[in-house]
Amino acid sequence: MIDLLLVGIGAGNPKHLTLEAIEALNSADVILIPRKGPGKDDLAELRRVICRDYLTNGGPPQHEFDLPVRDPATPDYVQRVNDWHDAIATAWQDAITSQVGSSGRVAFLVWGDPSLYDSTLRIAERVQSKLALRLTVIPGITSVQALTAGHTIPLNTLAAPVTITTGRKLRDFGWPPETQTLVVMLDAGGAFEVLAKDDYDIWWSAFAGMPQEIRIAGPLSEVQDHILETRAKARADHGWIMDVYLIRKRDT
Amino acid sequence: MIDLLLVGIGAGNPKHLTLEAIEALNSADVILIPRKGPGKDDLAELRRVICRDYLTNGGPPQHEFDLPVRDPATPDYVQRVNDWHDAIATAWQDAITSQVGSSGRVAFLVWGDPSLYDSTLRIAERVQSKLALRLTVIPGITSVQALTAGHTIPLNTLAAPVTITTGRKLRDFGWPPETQTLVVMLDAGGAFEVLAKDDYDIWWSAFAGMPQEIRIAGPLSEVQDHILETRAKARADHGWIMDVYLIRKRDT
Repeated sequence: MIDLLLVGIGAGNPKHLTLEAIEALNSADVILIPRKGPGKDDLAELRRVICRDYLTNGGPPQHEFDLPVRDPATPDYVQRVNDWHDAIATAWQDAITSQVGSSGRVAFLVWGDPSLYDSTLRIAERVQSKLALRLTVIPGITSVQALTAGHTIPLNTLAAPVTITTGRKLRDFGWPPETQTLVVMLDAGGAFEVLAKDDYDIWWSAFAGMPQEIRIAGPLSEVQDHILETRAKARADHGWIMDVYLIRKRDT
Repeated sequence: MIDLLLVGIGAGNPKHLTLEAIEALNSADVILIPRKGPGKDDLAELRRVICRDYLTNGGPPQHEFDLPVRDPATPDYVQRVNDWHDAIATAWQDAITSQVGSSGRVAFLVWGDPSLYDSTLRIAERVQSKLALRLTVIPGITSVQALTAGHTIPLNTLAAPVTITTGRKLRDFGWPPETQTLVVMLDAGGAFEVLAKDDYDIWWSAFAGMPQEIRIAGPLSEVQDHILETRAKARADHGWIMDVYLIRKRDT
């Protein structure tokens, strides 16, 4: 039996690590590191810091392996992602077997929490249909929590619901019905431009939880352009960007 | 200036503590412990374990103080909660001033994460209007994350939204429109009974993240009664219960 540990490591601050995550990582026989290709490995530096400064003796052995890329020829988004996850599962299976055979403890580092807009669990399920795997998930701090902590705001208004969605959904379908608070992740940039900007307030963070964190908050009508300019500049300066935001509809 | 630290301590497992939370708690001049009244202090034992086993030298001094109770004579729910939060803010202000005067670092332990269905931030804002306070929020693992980790499930389906709500909202307003995944917190018990049970799957956890964690999952039609019976028994056995669940609507 293989123990597969999916370990949430938080939103980019190594001090987001929980004691449970540190214990799980230290207990592994090997940490597997998927390589996504040049310029896409946001986790690389954080992973090095975590192993060097927070695990025992620099952590368990690490094994890097290459991931396949998405096939842009598949037109349907969900089908394209599903095909890609199948191919990734095969790469995981090969990496796991090459490192521990049919028995051992294998850990993956997962940015944020493995439950939220992350493909790791979907891929692990596919591997589970091929290999005898026992799956353990260790929760981690998400960028949503880093967002609200940075702005010192609650996620929900008093006793009211919150919806978490993607930039794509907001752009394609607009504001969801009967929603007061919307958190948007994975936005390729400025999906909030579809909204009637006089009706909303926004709390925006880029690199939430990291030393280079940038925060902007205010009425959407006043800060929308500032956010778009700041985002473009930060992306150019750093070569990549990860941002997340909360929008509340005003009482009307 | 007073530094007020609102520190998320996770969902009941002391190993949910992040390194950031431990550092923040150790840095405080005093940890303030609001007493909610007999039988309501769920945090008591966890707090003792955290200070004794995870903080330096048993942690900073702790000061307990009594909280006012909600006035059941106020008929409107939101008004009743708002009045109560005003009264709590006064109690916080007195406790803070009595311990550090007008300058020092004061920490509160917050179950889960301070952003999610928690009154701490709302109370801190009220105190901020009376005292010169600098507010810091340290995120913590929520029961929602302990739920999905325990069941090893993703929160969202592929690239789809998730709504987090309360048992009261589900019971009063039913399934929210255009929603596939709903997470329900603060349910006094069985709000899912309002749903057409053949259309949904449920993942339910009581005491998520704690040693006494109980998990039940399956089609709502098959497990609904089992959940209600298990919940009633667990509540009787332990004297209290905290549960959380995720419901997904099947593709129809």
